[in-house]
Amino acid sequence: MNWTLARRAARLEPSTIREILKVTERPGIISLAGGLPAAEGFPVEAMAAACAKVLRDHPREALQYAASEGYAPLREWVAAEMAGQGLRAGSSQVLITTGSQQGLDLVGKVLVDPGCRVAVESPTYLGALQAFNPYEPEFVAVDGDDEGPLPQGLQAARGARFLYLLPNFQNPSGRCLPAARRLALADTARAIGLPVVEDNPYGDLWFDQPPPPPLAAALGDDAVYLGSFSKVLAPGLRLGYLIAPPALYPKLLQAKQAADLHTPGFNQRVVHEVIKDGFLSQHVPTIRARYKAQRDAMRAALERQLPPGCRFNVPAGGMFFWVELPPALDAAALLPKAVAAGVAYVPGAAFFADHGRANTMRLSFVTVSPERITQGVAALGRVLQEAVK
Amino acid sequence: MNWTLARRAARLEPSTIREILKVTERPGIISLAGGLPAAEGFPVEAMAAACAKVLRDHPREALQYAASEGYAPLREWVAAEMAGQGLRAGSSQVLITTGSQQGLDLVGKVLVDPGCRVAVESPTYLGALQAFNPYEPEFVAVDGDDEGPLPQGLQAARGARFLYLLPNFQNPSGRCLPAARRLALADTARAIGLPVVEDNPYGDLWFDQPPPPPLAAALGDDAVYLGSFSKVLAPGLRLGYLIAPPALYPKLLQAKQAADLHTPGFNQRVVHEVIKDGFLSQHVPTIRARYKAQRDAMRAALERQLPPGCRFNVPAGGMFFWVELPPALDAAALLPKAVAAGVAYVPGAAFFADHGRANTMRLSFVTVSPERITQGVAALGRVLQEAVK
Repeated sequence: MNWTLARRAARLEPSTIREILKVTERPGIISLAGGLPAAEGFPVEAMAAACAKVLRDHPREALQYAASEGYAPLREWVAAEMAGQGLRAGSSQVLITTGSQQGLDLVGKVLVDPGCRVAVESPTYLGALQAFNPYEPEFVAVDGDDEGPLPQGLQAARGARFLYLLPNFQNPSGRCLPAARRLALADTARAIGLPVVEDNPYGDLWFDQPPPPPLAAALGDDAVYLGSFSKVLAPGLRLGYLIAPPALYPKLLQAKQAADLHTPGFNQRVVHEVIKDGFLSQHVPTIRARYKAQRDAMRAALERQLPPGCRFNVPAGGMFFWVELPPALDAAALLPKAVAAGVAYVPGAAFFADHGRANTMRLSFVTVSPERITQGVAALGRVLQEAVK
Repeated sequence: MNWTLARRAARLEPSTIREILKVTERPGIISLAGGLPAAEGFPVEAMAAACAKVLRDHPREALQYAASEGYAPLREWVAAEMAGQGLRAGSSQVLITTGSQQGLDLVGKVLVDPGCRVAVESPTYLGALQAFNPYEPEFVAVDGDDEGPLPQGLQAARGARFLYLLPNFQNPSGRCLPAARRLALADTARAIGLPVVEDNPYGDLWFDQPPPPPLAAALGDDAVYLGSFSKVLAPGLRLGYLIAPPALYPKLLQAKQAADLHTPGFNQRVVHEVIKDGFLSQHVPTIRARYKAQRDAMRAALERQLPPGCRFNVPAGGMFFWVELPPALDAAALLPKAVAAGVAYVPGAAFFADHGRANTMRLSFVTVSPERITQGVAALGRVLQEAVK
């Protein structure tokens, strides 16, 4: 074996979550561990009709090599959609990506040098840590509260290449930054010269009211914005996008060419065919209603079943509850007991860039029914009641 | 503008070829410049039937998040197919990629450190240079002849991280390495401890007889093999694969997770549905027959039209002729004249990792009809006749 690995390969590690999921996907386990959207919500008929139409009307274009920037009508749709949310950018600033995970990889490739600093929330999205990690940054975890990172916390991130933020119904914490916090963070970031990479996979999954406008709307050319079709249509298409300032776009585009030439043109055309006449305005409310009922079931169960000393926020959208256990408990150590009791979750420690807090866990409420949520949380409650004795 | 680019971003450059293609895709130009397969060969009806079947039988699985390794039956198909070509590897060694371009990016990410050496053919595939470049290697161009790199040329590459080879109907040179050369290269590579990354997008496009077995069949765990469905089905699906030794596979898999989580599961299932019952054994011969007729047309035209002092090999498969002009001519400088005369090609200099040879050009014979090939080469011949005067 003559292979020599690149130094960065040492930073590539098996995904803790994927390892956990393998264990917990055994039959009979109620898994609150997954990060998957509910498959019941996939628009299968619309997809089938769009596949047939694209292959009937434009088969050669859909199956041929295509522009690295993405399918022009889809880029225009994204620009128009984002303008409606206050983020004004030309379609020439939109780059279609192979899921928004690829957007994170491209950002890392173009912006991160070994040893440079990248500021993140605490906790933050694990997939972003995994995407940035091979480029060997040092992470700076920004202090925060229930409303998100604290503006004064950004001072510690001065000189970082960027601040990575997931402001809407964050994975894993579920928290949504209020408008005032967003503006305060944007002001401080701009004042100290800290650009922002804003990731928004969950923003459309609000239950009562839409989240405030993106930080990128206030930051203009000092922000890169990442979006995704995974949660409003289906993740198996691997379709996302980024919006970048003109000074950064060409480098991200060249990194995209080097990474996979372009995102499958067939998928781009099929999704555009599905959404171009307003499909999402009927479809997404059905997802919201389903997830809200599941959120309510989990909230009620958690309020009934958790022992004293546990704490959780009620998410106003998205897919996750974040539970803080009494400080003496270790969610990873308790997982085997929970699995033995028939329920699984993700221990929270992996979501911290610095010292993981062992007494945290992430619970997904979207992949199992309200009845099963109630059963699963009851089982979890029994394990925790036993642990705090 | 507060963004600071990573050092590697300086190595990201606009694709010369894509810039040329933009100019030459004007109506009326006979473009021999493209690297696109013929859209007439796309199996549109089979694709449409497979899309409908996958969405009817397994919609939720096809549209949900999926394993980073790829769809298990497709991985098994690849392993069986490659075993038939002498490369014995378990399906656990197969990683499905978003086009084989992504395979090149993953190889670069896992194996290339800044300043380390990577050995390549001369000329070599431009997309590989673009994929490896952001990881900041120094390229070593291995000396070769009409049968490929010379085994003794590998001595200069001793200590490189790997040798990148495209042995079958190479892009851009069209050359196919004979069996004896493959074995000699494999022997020398093994003797000096130089692993091989073998790329095979064109191997199925042979005209008279299949190419010899892959080098990876002889090299075993000292090779990574890259394959693609782009040329035998359609590139717009972005579906490729790599086969890696067990010691390397986990790192490539983790890099894949970080890059885009997984290749679209829908596309993987659709392609598996199309190919699982032997479709390619009927379909690929139709592509071969079309391309062979086009190859013959270009060969005849080149023999008639090129001025003395030009040289070309007749490719036994693939998509490209490689033409060497008299040393005094510069293909890039002549391109505007050719475009004015109604024909376009790709100047060859960009395909060299070291000093580009300005008197070379790549001609694709698969995207235009034999009649247009004859016209285009006649126009090119007039430009060259004028230039050598």
